[in-house]
Amino acid sequence: MTSGPLFTQAIIARKRDGHALSEEEIRGFVRGATDGSWADYQLSALLMAVWLRGMTPQETAVLTDAIVRSGSAADLSRVPRYKVDKHSTGGVGDKVSIPLAPMAAACGLAVPMISGRALGHTGGTLDKLESIPGFRTALPLREFEEQVARIGVALIGQTAELAPADRKLYALRDATATVECIPLICGSIMGKKLSEGIDGLVLDVKFGRGAFMREKARARELALALSAIGTASGKSVRALLTAMEEPLGRTVGNALEVAESVDCLKGRGPADVMEVTYALGQQMLLMGGIARTAPEARAQLEQSVSSGAALAKFAEIVAAQDGDPRVADDPGFLPRAPIRLPLVSESAGFVRGVDAMGVALAALRLGAGRTRAEDRIDPAVGVSALVKVGETVARGGTLCMIHAADRTRAEEARTILKATIELGPERLAPAPLIAEVIGA
Amino acid sequence: MTSGPLFTQAIIARKRDGHALSEEEIRGFVRGATDGSWADYQLSALLMAVWLRGMTPQETAVLTDAIVRSGSAADLSRVPRYKVDKHSTGGVGDKVSIPLAPMAAACGLAVPMISGRALGHTGGTLDKLESIPGFRTALPLREFEEQVARIGVALIGQTAELAPADRKLYALRDATATVECIPLICGSIMGKKLSEGIDGLVLDVKFGRGAFMREKARARELALALSAIGTASGKSVRALLTAMEEPLGRTVGNALEVAESVDCLKGRGPADVMEVTYALGQQMLLMGGIARTAPEARAQLEQSVSSGAALAKFAEIVAAQDGDPRVADDPGFLPRAPIRLPLVSESAGFVRGVDAMGVALAALRLGAGRTRAEDRIDPAVGVSALVKVGETVARGGTLCMIHAADRTRAEEARTILKATIELGPERLAPAPLIAEVIGA
Repeated sequence: MTSGPLFTQAIIARKRDGHALSEEEIRGFVRGATDGSWADYQLSALLMAVWLRGMTPQETAVLTDAIVRSGSAADLSRVPRYKVDKHSTGGVGDKVSIPLAPMAAACGLAVPMISGRALGHTGGTLDKLESIPGFRTALPLREFEEQVARIGVALIGQTAELAPADRKLYALRDATATVECIPLICGSIMGKKLSEGIDGLVLDVKFGRGAFMREKARARELALALSAIGTASGKSVRALLTAMEEPLGRTVGNALEVAESVDCLKGRGPADVMEVTYALGQQMLLMGGIARTAPEARAQLEQSVSSGAALAKFAEIVAAQDGDPRVADDPGFLPRAPIRLPLVSESAGFVRGVDAMGVALAALRLGAGRTRAEDRIDPAVGVSALVKVGETVARGGTLCMIHAADRTRAEEARTILKATIELGPERLAPAPLIAEVIGA
Repeated sequence: MTSGPLFTQAIIARKRDGHALSEEEIRGFVRGATDGSWADYQLSALLMAVWLRGMTPQETAVLTDAIVRSGSAADLSRVPRYKVDKHSTGGVGDKVSIPLAPMAAACGLAVPMISGRALGHTGGTLDKLESIPGFRTALPLREFEEQVARIGVALIGQTAELAPADRKLYALRDATATVECIPLICGSIMGKKLSEGIDGLVLDVKFGRGAFMREKARARELALALSAIGTASGKSVRALLTAMEEPLGRTVGNALEVAESVDCLKGRGPADVMEVTYALGQQMLLMGGIARTAPEARAQLEQSVSSGAALAKFAEIVAAQDGDPRVADDPGFLPRAPIRLPLVSESAGFVRGVDAMGVALAALRLGAGRTRAEDRIDPAVGVSALVKVGETVARGGTLCMIHAADRTRAEEARTILKATIELGPERLAPAPLIAEVIGA
């Protein structure tokens, strides 16, 4: 009566009935996900029970720890610098990791960054980086450790060694409508991040139309839960709550966002991308003791840009990961779409709204994203020169540029984008981008 | 965005969020279970969401209909008799189907009966019948139809043709702690039963320590839900709520229960088995118009026993399904366990309680049941001559006989049974066995 399968069912039943699971039960579940001793249908039944019944902070902490221990953590003990990563909960046009990591490394931090791929409406840092010809994101753990030790920063994807339980559970969650669940999100994000060998973590928790969490209160709840897990594991965690109503920046699409990131590293990126990048960088520098005050941190970040050190660090990363470093100088080395069409405004006015979800949908139709994990991405396509809320548009002016593989898709995207960009007779003050800083 | 997998996730998410599913969504789910277009982990996630969120009566009716339509129903249109089956929600020592089916057939009803197997603490009619040497329960649908037409009764297992969606879903529910859920139970039971080509159905819904539902109120809820589904499909349904605190009868174990069933067909079975058998049979005869009043129905059933017609019908079934019909005369033709030990009472007194779960556990240890679907059953082992609540026991008297394959298991069973049979200084009046009749 205490054989494997019955024990599995008893664990599922206990969560189903609303009980908190014991440490042994949670570790049994995560072990089952890792070694296959739980069937996928048993894992997904428990995931749904967790979605509906929740987990206590203590259960969530055990879940995270079990996910970390499901694999081998990165060993960065020989890196003397303060090691800090950044995680964003995902948005549209969010390319902040790409300028931020080299800036922070140029300022003296070590940045061991493990990123994700595009899925659904959100983009993925890995896909953006892979639009750089030759760029490898699939570095083995040893090479990752070595690169962080050597140049202070590496930007890679989840390896087979790191948190394998999360890879299994995330794929199941995606297929079973159990993604948006704070304890499961915490276990997934922090399970990966705590495997990186970091000292500190900054979080960009997004809310709004283009974010996973629409409401700020729910984003704050997630930020607090993530911070609690990090703190319980002895890591410093700070979180920004940032608005995701319109896309971040003026580009959505992989190579287009790399080009915009290079603009940021040259100090001429869009104001909103610069603002979020600097705000996250400030917290990283403060956590790492590189700066003592926020203005001091800001000055150091700006200095890394104006001196060219951040751009040089970016080129160094690209070269180290076998990409073409010439993209740091000339976006012409990035892939370009054959069709480039402007979306022309049929009236004059002020931009009232650019629905991030609408832009994401247009980018998906163009082939810039994925609706399934196995979808292939076209690195060249997307949207650029997007107007921002509060800007004025003349009749006949350009609302954005559409970059497409063919004319049919370009027209489909144009139809979507037309409905997505809203003009009005009066200038609206855009809502503040950074709503709150938690843990500073 | 409306491709297969996303649609699946949207259905799961809607139930997760507590919405009633549309007919199209429920049929999509059942089709997905039947044709494999839903992954097992998606089916189980939805099953857990249904367990926690429930289903409306209308959703349950659609689920049941979709399960019926997942296969081909039996065609008994050429059988002129009233066709009625009986279903029990399962208990310990519940062998009622074995005497009831031939009695009802001997009285002029057609009984197309599809039964289940032992699982967990409950026995299964199929396993009991298969203890008869040669008895085949895996009849193809055509042979089942032909036998019902020819001799008025057949006792078989679920075929590949009938309700295949239920087979899939039941196996998943068993592995994911989603069995005890009224809409899912309704879909499973009625999906199978409505596939049999019946006109009416009697239900034995058990409550108490040895039943799936401990509380009578919950058993009544299930009985009403099952009746509603049957009625909505144009079938007559009547339900008995019966107590399952001590085992039914004096035997638990497959061949031992067949021998006791033969005793019932000879009119000398234990009082409680006779009472439940007659009570269910009465409802069947009344539904089929074979009798106009309960006493008339009872008299006809008793007559089928005293005349030997019911026993002869049993022998006819056994012969038709390739079993050895001599078991109807002599239990010596059934398999016998090598070890037979009495459990001797260490004190004198009145039997206060015989915990059905304790007896079931002892029978499981002896090898009479299954803890997993793939476990092999020993047909010979079990418990017989079990005392009943309210009986007197002398010091040194026999509380039961243990039938075992070896001495080690016999001793293990003895230890469990000792703790299971409780004596006291005063005679307790046993609770009524039949608590309620619904739908009569």
